[in-house]
Amino acid sequence: MRKHITGFSNPTVKYLRSLRDKKHRKRSGQFLVEGLRLLEDARSTGRLPATLVMAEGRAAHQLLARLEADVVAAGGEVIATSPDILSKITGKDNAQSVVGVFDEWDTGLAALDRSAAPIWLVAQALRDPGNLGTMLRTGDAVGAGGLILIDDCADPFSAEAVRASMGAVFTVPLAQARWDEFLPWLREGSGQLLAASLRDAVPYRGAAYEAPCFILVGNESQGLPQEYEAACDLRVTMPMRGRADSLNAAVAGAVLAYEVLAGLEG
Amino acid sequence: MRKHITGFSNPTVKYLRSLRDKKHRKRSGQFLVEGLRLLEDARSTGRLPATLVMAEGRAAHQLLARLEADVVAAGGEVIATSPDILSKITGKDNAQSVVGVFDEWDTGLAALDRSAAPIWLVAQALRDPGNLGTMLRTGDAVGAGGLILIDDCADPFSAEAVRASMGAVFTVPLAQARWDEFLPWLREGSGQLLAASLRDAVPYRGAAYEAPCFILVGNESQGLPQEYEAACDLRVTMPMRGRADSLNAAVAGAVLAYEVLAGLEG
Repeated sequence: MRKHITGFSNPTVKYLRSLRDKKHRKRSGQFLVEGLRLLEDARSTGRLPATLVMAEGRAAHQLLARLEADVVAAGGEVIATSPDILSKITGKDNAQSVVGVFDEWDTGLAALDRSAAPIWLVAQALRDPGNLGTMLRTGDAVGAGGLILIDDCADPFSAEAVRASMGAVFTVPLAQARWDEFLPWLREGSGQLLAASLRDAVPYRGAAYEAPCFILVGNESQGLPQEYEAACDLRVTMPMRGRADSLNAAVAGAVLAYEVLAGLEG
Repeated sequence: MRKHITGFSNPTVKYLRSLRDKKHRKRSGQFLVEGLRLLEDARSTGRLPATLVMAEGRAAHQLLARLEADVVAAGGEVIATSPDILSKITGKDNAQSVVGVFDEWDTGLAALDRSAAPIWLVAQALRDPGNLGTMLRTGDAVGAGGLILIDDCADPFSAEAVRASMGAVFTVPLAQARWDEFLPWLREGSGQLLAASLRDAVPYRGAAYEAPCFILVGNESQGLPQEYEAACDLRVTMPMRGRADSLNAAVAGAVLAYEVLAGLEG
């Protein structure tokens, strides 16, 4: 059964709106997913929103009807409201006609199984949520075991990261850890830590990659701390033919990931 | 000599502020570049702003002083104003302490020399200015001859594209053209048109790349029109091991560009 909300000052509206802030997401353990396409991606991987918020007065949509039925069957809540209130919740003038509220999941290192995949992505202090989502999307494409976020990264559950991931946030396992948790965890088992570097490095093309290979990408403006680079098992350089000495972080991670994929399967 | 502006309603402030809009940039043929770092990138490639707008009351900076002297020597204008007015111009709360106004340059196809480089990037209907800037940055890294923007792309002179390019907007030649101008231009001389595709394609790894190779990347949500794909000389597939069937456009272009670079250099 649908619950109808008509008032802008309704506490549920206020709560949903608060989920745009990282602070409130952390407190509540929930996040917003905007749009039927992303919600369908989630559904197809077995994840359903705890709450579905739909705009009233839109034409009926078969996929949306199925999603609503699934949410109800799973004991979730369905809220119908006006397009204006939906816009207020998402903060966008042209809001999607549906928003889902998901429970965040466990992002501890302990949940990862390093034998599950030959490639892993690791990002350090990645600040741009678009880059973070793009890395998730790349992780999906190369069959990565997961994306491990080190130190103070953008929130993978922000609307921008979820959108840039094109649904990969639901398929690529995520972990969040400090460097001094990650490194001991890595060294407990097998795993090659790899980074692009200008120091003491070999050409990235055809380097001696070993599975499971953990591809470490540094912060957008600072790159990796020297100490982190030094802890790597393999440092590689990529051709830089122009004036700049670095690539966009998500691009660098992807070029490396595709090279590692080719190397491990070669 | 510096001109001082103290009023928010000064016509120069209004003009500078209008350059945040694509429409006004097109009309005036000028664009804004924010921050000393990007302005230094421009200077080092021989490009100086027609007008330099500096915040008063900031600590003296050696690079900024040199830039100011160069702008004056080149007959440019220097404006000093308050940090608040600079924020109003850029639309950012934490404005950079300096902004440059540049004249746009010719982005016609005729200015390109295809023999100048073995790799060229071509983007079709690329809508995200961050992706566009990232492609410029990648173009710099792989030594691309230029980035050719086909059909209705984001504006390469927008603040976001300029920022994402990390200065590559000043080093990587740009062209803008309709598809029905580009294709005849391409076929006037040598040039392999390459795209990632799911149709009738060979594996991207070790494909028969030929210089000059024009790497064509499609729109973020639609991909390339089928007709554009059909016009390509070579269609390649990249491994997609997950649920999705595509990569971020700037990522796809970069992975391909690095593969082409390796292939051409054997």
